[in-house]
Amino acid sequence: MAKKRFSPLTRRKQLPSQKPGTAPGTVEYVGHQKVEEVIISLYDYDEDHIDQLSVTDIEECRPYLENPTKTWIHVKGLHDTEKLKSIWSFFDLHPLIQEDIVNTGQHPKMETYGNCIFFVLRMFTYSNEQKELHSEQISIVLGPNYVLSFQETDLDHFRPILNRLSVQGGRLRIHPVDYLAYALLDTVVDHYFSALDNIGDTIIQIEDGLFEDGNKDLLHRIHRVRRETALFRKSIRPLREAINAAIRDPSDLISDNTRLYLRDVYDHIIQVIDTMESYRDMVLSLHDLYMSNLSNKMNEVMKVLTIIATIFIPLTFIAGIYGMNFNPEASPYNMPELNTYWGYPASLILMALIAVAMIFYFKEKEWL
Amino acid sequence: MAKKRFSPLTRRKQLPSQKPGTAPGTVEYVGHQKVEEVIISLYDYDEDHIDQLSVTDIEECRPYLENPTKTWIHVKGLHDTEKLKSIWSFFDLHPLIQEDIVNTGQHPKMETYGNCIFFVLRMFTYSNEQKELHSEQISIVLGPNYVLSFQETDLDHFRPILNRLSVQGGRLRIHPVDYLAYALLDTVVDHYFSALDNIGDTIIQIEDGLFEDGNKDLLHRIHRVRRETALFRKSIRPLREAINAAIRDPSDLISDNTRLYLRDVYDHIIQVIDTMESYRDMVLSLHDLYMSNLSNKMNEVMKVLTIIATIFIPLTFIAGIYGMNFNPEASPYNMPELNTYWGYPASLILMALIAVAMIFYFKEKEWL
Amino acid sequence: MAKKRFSPLTRRKQLPSQKPGTAPGTVEYVGHQKVEEVIISLYDYDEDHIDQLSVTDIEECRPYLENPTKTWIHVKGLHDTEKLKSIWSFFDLHPLIQEDIVNTGQHPKMETYGNCIFFVLRMFTYSNEQKELHSEQISIVLGPNYVLSFQETDLDHFRPILNRLSVQGGRLRIHPVDYLAYALLDTVVDHYFSALDNIGDTIIQIEDGLFEDGNKDLLHRIHRVRRETALFRKSIRPLREAINAAIRDPSDLISDNTRLYLRDVYDHIIQVIDTMESYRDMVLSLHDLYMSNLSNKMNEVMKVLTIIATIFIPLTFIAGIYGMNFNPEASPYNMPELNTYWGYPASLILMALIAVAMIFYFKEKEWL
Amino acid sequence: MAKKRFSPLTRRKQLPSQKPGTAPGTVEYVGHQKVEEVIISLYDYDEDHIDQLSVTDIEECRPYLENPTKTWIHVKGLHDTEKLKSIWSFFDLHPLIQEDIVNTGQHPKMETYGNCIFFVLRMFTYSNEQKELHSEQISIVLGPNYVLSFQETDLDHFRPILNRLSVQGGRLRIHPVDYLAYALLDTVVDHYFSALDNIGDTIIQIEDGLFEDGNKDLLHRIHRVRRETALFRKSIRPLREAINAAIRDPSDLISDNTRLYLRDVYDHIIQVIDTMESYRDMVLSLHDLYMSNLSNKMNEVMKVLTIIATIFIPLTFIAGIYGMNFNPEASPYNMPELNTYWGYPASLILMALIAVAMIFYFKEKEWL
Amino acid sequence: MAKKRFSPLTRRKQLPSQKPGTAPGTVEYVGHQKVEEVIISLYDYDEDHIDQLSVTDIEECRPYLENPTKTWIHVKGLHDTEKLKSIWSFFDLHPLIQEDIVNTGQHPKMETYGNCIFFVLRMFTYSNEQKELHSEQISIVLGPNYVLSFQETDLDHFRPILNRLSVQGGRLRIHPVDYLAYALLDTVVDHYFSALDNIGDTIIQIEDGLFEDGNKDLLHRIHRVRRETALFRKSIRPLREAINAAIRDPSDLISDNTRLYLRDVYDHIIQVIDTMESYRDMVLSLHDLYMSNLSNKMNEVMKVLTIIATIFIPLTFIAGIYGMNFNPEASPYNMPELNTYWGYPASLILMALIAVAMIFYFKEKEWL
Repeated sequence: MAKKRFSPLTRRKQLPSQKPGTAPGTVEYVGHQKVEEVIISLYDYDEDHIDQLSVTDIEECRPYLENPTKTWIHVKGLHDTEKLKSIWSFFDLHPLIQEDIVNTGQHPKMETYGNCIFFVLRMFTYSNEQKELHSEQISIVLGPNYVLSFQETDLDHFRPILNRLSVQGGRLRIHPVDYLAYALLDTVVDHYFSALDNIGDTIIQIEDGLFEDGNKDLLHRIHRVRRETALFRKSIRPLREAINAAIRDPSDLISDNTRLYLRDVYDHIIQVIDTMESYRDMVLSLHDLYMSNLSNKMNEVMKVLTIIATIFIPLTFIAGIYGMNFNPEASPYNMPELNTYWGYPASLILMALIAVAMIFYFKEKEWL
Repeated sequence: MAKKRFSPLTRRKQLPSQKPGTAPGTVEYVGHQKVEEVIISLYDYDEDHIDQLSVTDIEECRPYLENPTKTWIHVKGLHDTEKLKSIWSFFDLHPLIQEDIVNTGQHPKMETYGNCIFFVLRMFTYSNEQKELHSEQISIVLGPNYVLSFQETDLDHFRPILNRLSVQGGRLRIHPVDYLAYALLDTVVDHYFSALDNIGDTIIQIEDGLFEDGNKDLLHRIHRVRRETALFRKSIRPLREAINAAIRDPSDLISDNTRLYLRDVYDHIIQVIDTMESYRDMVLSLHDLYMSNLSNKMNEVMKVLTIIATIFIPLTFIAGIYGMNFNPEASPYNMPELNTYWGYPASLILMALIAVAMIFYFKEKEWL
Repeated sequence: MAKKRFSPLTRRKQLPSQKPGTAPGTVEYVGHQKVEEVIISLYDYDEDHIDQLSVTDIEECRPYLENPTKTWIHVKGLHDTEKLKSIWSFFDLHPLIQEDIVNTGQHPKMETYGNCIFFVLRMFTYSNEQKELHSEQISIVLGPNYVLSFQETDLDHFRPILNRLSVQGGRLRIHPVDYLAYALLDTVVDHYFSALDNIGDTIIQIEDGLFEDGNKDLLHRIHRVRRETALFRKSIRPLREAINAAIRDPSDLISDNTRLYLRDVYDHIIQVIDTMESYRDMVLSLHDLYMSNLSNKMNEVMKVLTIIATIFIPLTFIAGIYGMNFNPEASPYNMPELNTYWGYPASLILMALIAVAMIFYFKEKEWL
Repeated sequence: MAKKRFSPLTRRKQLPSQKPGTAPGTVEYVGHQKVEEVIISLYDYDEDHIDQLSVTDIEECRPYLENPTKTWIHVKGLHDTEKLKSIWSFFDLHPLIQEDIVNTGQHPKMETYGNCIFFVLRMFTYSNEQKELHSEQISIVLGPNYVLSFQETDLDHFRPILNRLSVQGGRLRIHPVDYLAYALLDTVVDHYFSALDNIGDTIIQIEDGLFEDGNKDLLHRIHRVRRETALFRKSIRPLREAINAAIRDPSDLISDNTRLYLRDVYDHIIQVIDTMESYRDMVLSLHDLYMSNLSNKMNEVMKVLTIIATIFIPLTFIAGIYGMNFNPEASPYNMPELNTYWGYPASLILMALIAVAMIFYFKEKEWL
Repeated sequence: MAKKRFSPLTRRKQLPSQKPGTAPGTVEYVGHQKVEEVIISLYDYDEDHIDQLSVTDIEECRPYLENPTKTWIHVKGLHDTEKLKSIWSFFDLHPLIQEDIVNTGQHPKMETYGNCIFFVLRMFTYSNEQKELHSEQISIVLGPNYVLSFQETDLDHFRPILNRLSVQGGRLRIHPVDYLAYALLDTVVDHYFSALDNIGDTIIQIEDGLFEDGNKDLLHRIHRVRRETALFRKSIRPLREAINAAIRDPSDLISDNTRLYLRDVYDHIIQVIDTMESYRDMVLSLHDLYMSNLSNKMNEVMKVLTIIATIFIPLTFIAGIYGMNFNPEASPYNMPELNTYWGYPASLILMALIAVAMIFYFKEKEWL
């Protein structure tokens, strides 16, 4: 039984949590099966050659790992516990690594073990069809002459790296295997910029919408961006510390040259985080703007009501006065106006004067 | 007389505070008695055997502690001061440890003493019946070859650990006793994820409720989540530093292997804290959303009032004009319209025109 | 002339500030005289005896200080500069200590001088009669074999310590004099928990009030709690650093054993600060709740107005129509309805239909 | 050409900025000339004597600087570049110091150069006539046996120091010249407490105003305090680091005794900053209170409108019904009520009943 | 293919992002071409001479770089990849530097490589015509005896430096080449003060506008300033760390004298950041003020409506009563008032009394 961690970016119903208190390092995938079958690909390369192999039994990898060339083993799909266990025991991975690979709600981290360095981080991709962020967990194990990587889906996130690997004389081929690990990390971080672009575009659309009509749907979108921003931040912030730890790590597994490149990744992560922070401010500003717009509209509605009501209510009252039925015959004081020669025009003029006065009053108050 | 600390998660009336200035390390339970009787269980184990004993007199433990095997003594219930005192003097615990065990409003901490390491932390469980978080204090004393743990209630939080202890060859049986202390800490932290799940579910329910009808009860629920989040954060944040201190502690009581596992607990706590932070942001966002929804509704109400009033008030005024009783016989200027052939239809048409003009005006303003 | 610092918790009119630029270390009490006469009490004790003395001339203390036993001199009242000066010169206190003792708006701090350690902190007590926090400054000077303490009022804050001192074999009697200094600090910090309890109770009362009637007084109380919280935080936060400095201080004046106890005080202060922070969040939440409640009420008021006005304004208009005086004799088109057989009932039915339609409309909008 | 920095506390039109890219250390005063003529005063003193001299040519200072006594040269007015240049070249000041002295928008800092320590900070004084904060820049250069200080205006900020200097046997006369530098810094910081007092008084006045009538002017005052607080904080925060740097500075120019006094200044600055922070919270709280008060008033206004309108609109409708002119002679169904015996009283009673019912409804809703 | 980073200050449509996963250090300009042709200028100087050269082939620079004099090569325009590549290979720049120069959305940073120090930062200029901030990326490479700088446009930002370079005996000519790098950085930072001035002016204009008429456009301007402030902060904050790193860098490329000047730049950046922070607070305060003003106005509108409606609605009701057509002949109880002698005047007086009472009520409530 594996212990499930919390993966909050999805609102899909999560699998029921296992009982707390189970042993750490127990291995069971907690996500939804996302591939038909676990696919294991091996790439063995050095400056002069590159071999590619689709692996069915992990033992097939042994000759490649035992020779001095660099080896990359990439695993797609995490549901087949048996197969994964065979890989882990083959590489002699620490139980905590095993647990982290299949518990796909991990926050990003970097941990050193005796024989390897372990990275876990989150890949964000924006699917244009569903108009929403998709995220999956990427785990990378960097050993002395191999990189072992895991992803949940069978999407080709790392296709560009394969392309670059196939170029003879490229940096990927020349540098030691830690450069490959860097390239994988860099690819994931590069995807963050696309996610940022999408969030930025949404913010601009909301902003434009606010100054146009201010329909109610904007409120939903502001809230959604706000939630996405909060969760995106949460998933990326710890990565800064993880990469920083990798840069300062005294282990031989990472060469000085690669550290230089990792510093670049580190800068990019800081840039992503800074941009997220300013987006967060901007979304708050958008919400304030929405509320201010709403208040402005309410104000305008109230002004219209007040102007119309304030002008006509007194006039209607005057009309009501002269609609009373006091009997002029009973007393000379009973509504003598009704029988005067200029009574009606005078009353109309009185009404007009009141209306004009009111309009002047509103003009002066700048309500008109 | 024990000194009472503040336990703010409960809104139940607290026991009256003792006078400040009493001696530290004085021992008296400040909570409500939660078990019939203090239950002491002893588990003595090594790789080859496990003995279980229900202890009535603490002296029964002496032979188990003096042999080289590992021993876990677990105490449920904190109200029987005499019994607890016998345990403490048996283990020679520092007065400050004694005070912290029974003052159940402690914030989480880890402290090293000459002969032991002391952890205090808070267990959160979500009771489905009462729909609320229940919390109790867990204290763990890690000695050279024993673990001594205390809890307030008789709930079986640590049942899974007992199950794992009973498995021959399991890590709990093989590793030294500090691994057991780790397992207890890990179990408590694992429960935080369940509590987080519950808070997350509540947030999603509120969110759904906001976009449906927005009944007033939502306001209570938003406020309750906000309070729960604030208090949960307060109870967990200091744990980060406590576990970190345990990892860096130079004492021999914690082995390097266990430090590796504690690092994992540390990561989980960070993850819990980060998730709490994003929940906090999301609850604030929910409140803003609630307010915006309210303003939107108010706006709609005002528009309906304004439209109806603005259309009918002028019409009523016109009707009022022709309801005046100026005497046509007294003057040809007194309401001659009343005697014209098309007077009535013309006035109706005038009214209709005004209404249509108003409706156009509102259409143009996009109020309709 | 002493320099006055700012003491913002009181809203009483402060004494006029002295001109800036006066010499530091000049001695004049800036507060209001709070006792009739400065009271100096001396307690000389060791494991075997305790002597108590009411001191009028500070020279009476000399024999007690010169013998090896521990001595506590406690001063109540700060207005008699001459008397204080005699004490200070007797103990050879640094001018900055002298200034800090009488300038009672100090923020908490700990400072080491050659011959002593100086603590200044603020005691908070909640007076049940006036329903408000009272605060006064406590200064503690820890020398090699004496503790010298000052307070502004003659309240018996430290009575429990005297009680414990009188118990032969108690820790206070056994441990060196720095343990007494710790006990004084601990007593002050323990009072913070009572103050916290009071603030917490007020928050709960406001919360209950909000869900009951929401009278205007709540706004005052929310604001008052908010101000109290802000000022309480300000007065306590620096204490954390002060106690931390005392723990790490290399001086011999504080023994390792007492450092252990100071660590406990440190933990309590952190707990007070954390609780203040969560109270601050909760008060903000309460204010938001108040505003939301207000908006909800306004919404309800507007709905009632809108429903009534929207139903009756059109009906009144119809009644107005048939109240017009167009002369039916002047034209067959002038209000022929008035002379129809079913005119009046038909108009009433029309009105009823309009009212029912409106009510249905409001039902559909869930305003009713 | 000097480069102008930004001085945001004044809203007066600033001098046009010089083009960026000019050489650092170029010397030209950027403020408004505030004195007729640059006044240079020299005070040469030691324990036994004090000489005072009004300097016209800086060369007059040479004998005083070359003798071993302590010398303080104080300059009032910064507009006369030639005179200032002669002083700077006389003291061989670094170009960056020269630039900072005349660019009067500096934020506070402390910098060490080979032959001196340079302080720049801001003096705040509250002018009672104009009811606003006035600020000017104070620069202090501490050399081996001299202090050189600059201020913009000819106000007598440092008069109390002169008074203390004239007292034989005073600390200022006995201690080395760095104590004088400390005294100048302390005087400036002491003025911050007066400024704080003024802000605090304004906050209390606003608070009192809020609970009295809530006139619109309060909004201006809240905003002004908010702006003043923001700018005051900005001008003082960096001073903390500057003084801290001075305390830790290894230079011989500051003696250990003076470091002790600087630590006191440091504590005062922290206290000023903490108080500013709590003022900031309180001003935010005041603004929230203002808004809540406003909402409460709006609510009350709306209730009055709603109550009056809701009671009278239905009554007016009923009156409107019986004001219709349906011809009773045309049909027995046309308004037969008009001819009944009790028709009028019955209609009045009906109206009264409706009014009473409405009032009961509002009572129940607690609107009355 | 170069990898594009996010440049959020422009709202112009960005170029499509390249696929993540491309090799780092690949070189392609991501911005819009801003100059006709890449312009390369060389300035070779020492204390005694200065040579200026417009370079077409980078090889022309070799003799200048090989002699011991100082050399500045400034490049305007980044679109001609071939030309840039020739420069980079000539100077043997690291691939990551190459990538950063053309990816013009970099956040500010300073990085040391074996043979050079690399700065990237952002120049802000305020164009008075378009009333908006323009920004471009400046890259500076400091080598042993050369400075290589890049900018996107052909604007003459560094003209003042050229002017100062041409002055024989000026500091730029005397000091080593790192002083030139400092001068470039200082010029960029000086421009920030102009940008700050512009933001400050806008804030003052908005403030003035708020107290005058409060037109809707202010909301847009507040929002724009808020966005500009957020993005400006994001672009400048990391610069602090970059300059700090340069100051502490142990490399020989920066002399101790220049470090002193860099410390000055560092102080300026802190000042810019502090000012930005206080502007941010002030803009938030402005928005609150806007909302409060709006609420005040709404309150006023509602009061006018309520006063008019509340006065006239009851009067209209009374007029409506006496407009009813109950037949006086059918019953003595049917509207006998209509036939009384003083009926009409009495009803008018009643109405006037009600109106006066209402006005008194509003006076008492201070609504009038």
